[in-house]
Amino acid sequence: MKLEYGAKNCLFPIPTVLVGALVEGKPNFNTIAFVGIIDLGHISVTLNKARYTSIGIREKGTFSVNVPSAEMVVETDYCGLVSGNKVDKSSVFEVFYGKLETAPMIESCPMNMECNLSQTLELAHHDVFIGEIAMTYGDERIMVDGKVDYSALHPLFFTMDDNGYWSLGERIATAWDVGKVMVEKGSL
Amino acid sequence: MKLEYGAKNCLFPIPTVLVGALVEGKPNFNTIAFVGIIDLGHISVTLNKARYTSIGIREKGTFSVNVPSAEMVVETDYCGLVSGNKVDKSSVFEVFYGKLETAPMIESCPMNMECNLSQTLELAHHDVFIGEIAMTYGDERIMVDGKVDYSALHPLFFTMDDNGYWSLGERIATAWDVGKVMVEKGSL
Repeated sequence: MKLEYGAKNCLFPIPTVLVGALVEGKPNFNTIAFVGIIDLGHISVTLNKARYTSIGIREKGTFSVNVPSAEMVVETDYCGLVSGNKVDKSSVFEVFYGKLETAPMIESCPMNMECNLSQTLELAHHDVFIGEIAMTYGDERIMVDGKVDYSALHPLFFTMDDNGYWSLGERIATAWDVGKVMVEKGSL
Repeated sequence: MKLEYGAKNCLFPIPTVLVGALVEGKPNFNTIAFVGIIDLGHISVTLNKARYTSIGIREKGTFSVNVPSAEMVVETDYCGLVSGNKVDKSSVFEVFYGKLETAPMIESCPMNMECNLSQTLELAHHDVFIGEIAMTYGDERIMVDGKVDYSALHPLFFTMDDNGYWSLGERIATAWDVGKVMVEKGSL
């Protein structure tokens, strides 16, 4: 039986990421889970209009998306607890820059994307920043023949109702393959 | 050491979902992983412009997002392998409708969102449909006191490089809590 849950997004668990921007000359990082894949070259991040990070994204037109591993849950949560308005978060992580030069990235996060701001959608309380990915960086230890080893990445997921952080489970099947048993001859 | 991965989205693993729409009077479902949380009331789904499902979304202005459990990996993969252009997928699942009446939803998926098309972003090869969530439905067995039991939901994640489907792991910490050990007195 189906129960009504309200008109609420239920796409959780979703990867938790740290959005980075240069604000007033210093790197700032904000933890979010309002994030999505637009396509292989674009990513969306949604920040509350009051967020300090938004100032830097608007000013520089660049930002970074940093994918933490589950081992970084304490630092990740911390960057969602305190605002750059009140606390200088520039020294929480070792920071590096890529080709854009104005999108600070977190060295200890196993994957990092630097983005040019491509489009901004204005919602009532949030700004949705759509980034065109300029370059993506991966830790050598999680890259195998140019591909990501997701078990080694060990990503961190967020769930809304229970304020939970979760780890990734097992690889259970291969896409564009496991469903072939249902394909009738000639229908592919 | 950081390696360049190319200008590629690395927000995987991401939840895999089935997007539903009424096309030519019949329910059609397409499996995607280009999906994201815009905010608690909005979701983005990206479909290739050639997708059959897009016809229905544009025509009716409504669509559904159905969250499969990992046990549904075969049916989920199948709906990504075959196009509604060639194969009638209307009888793959038991279908139900909600208040919008034109957004077919999958009974066997533990969570379902019915959406009004709020905005469309046109990319070169894709349409990004932003849905305003009209109502969300959850299976009684995974809802506890109006909240989602994510272990019972047992969602399915997709990874790009290795075409993988993955399950959810363990709950490892509580958000807005585990990072408090880093908060200095008075900085919250």
